[in-house]
Amino acid sequence: MNEKQEATRVNGIDMNVLGKTVQAIKDDPELGRCRFRVRNKWLDANHNRTRITGFYGAKEEHEHKQTFELHADEPPILAGGDEGANPVEHLLNALASCVTTSIVAHAAVRGIVIEELESELEGDLDLRGFLGLDPDVPKGYTDIRVKFKVKTDEENLKKLKKLAQFSPVYNTLTNGANVDVQIEAK
Amino acid sequence: MNEKQEATRVNGIDMNVLGKTVQAIKDDPELGRCRFRVRNKWLDANHNRTRITGFYGAKEEHEHKQTFELHADEPPILAGGDEGANPVEHLLNALASCVTTSIVAHAAVRGIVIEELESELEGDLDLRGFLGLDPDVPKGYTDIRVKFKVKTDEENLKKLKKLAQFSPVYNTLTNGANVDVQIEAK
Repeated sequence: MNEKQEATRVNGIDMNVLGKTVQAIKDDPELGRCRFRVRNKWLDANHNRTRITGFYGAKEEHEHKQTFELHADEPPILAGGDEGANPVEHLLNALASCVTTSIVAHAAVRGIVIEELESELEGDLDLRGFLGLDPDVPKGYTDIRVKFKVKTDEENLKKLKKLAQFSPVYNTLTNGANVDVQIEAK
Repeated sequence: MNEKQEATRVNGIDMNVLGKTVQAIKDDPELGRCRFRVRNKWLDANHNRTRITGFYGAKEEHEHKQTFELHADEPPILAGGDEGANPVEHLLNALASCVTTSIVAHAAVRGIVIEELESELEGDLDLRGFLGLDPDVPKGYTDIRVKFKVKTDEENLKKLKKLAQFSPVYNTLTNGANVDVQIEAK
């Protein structure tokens, strides 16, 4: 017990907290069900704002300690005012952050110490799809490349690549999700 | 020509700029190819930061007018410090902003005036997938629901729903993308 308390953090993550969460979900799988939420408001032209205040998980509502506010816009050549990253850049951010967290957390659980970790992502998108100029051109990203540079023992690198596959955003992007869109009058 | 200049903005979007972009890509499809990029750095535990400085499109590099910085973290029950939206919340933000922009811009092109537009999104995610507790549980979002409330003429509502399908993020999420992850030593 004392030993566990001493070695409580790996890669900065409190292993006691993470361990308790994992054990609780093992004991009661229902605790694993989460529902994440955002609210978005169109401001003007291509500029809109998202607010994130809380989520449902472990059978109850949780408030974030602050309201997160995110802005999206388009650059001038896409008829925007460049007041925020554009939506497809936000998508790459979601992927980058998720794969990073997945690698770091799963490495911690396995006792793999990471000193530094950085990534560069790029995604290919042909605007002819979005603009409806050619129905044969995909509207979304076709290929996304994620390149990590990690400072850790050489022997860990191959293991880390496998850990990336636990990422929820990676899995959503590669497997797809059901997305239901409803529109009603305000 | 004068008439066009008078009616230059619909839903706040400069139709001359958008029209020129569309015409240029029609004339030279190669101009439509874009490559968006982000760089991410792990800071500590579940906290990481993305920076977005520019992108490639219309056959050249473009710098954003400012560097966009986005933080991701996890809430306390997921062993984080809650210093930013978490990655799967960022994913919902990407979807919300993209479908919003797609509806507003495509409506503008069709002369559909939108007065107000808001959305609420929620996504279902079972942590047992991410945590590796059950290989049969999907690691990503299974279902995402997007609910828009729009102030516009009643007759436009059905048309707007179809316009959502032009969204690149919506298409990436529903169709999936190839995601290649590489890891090398730093």
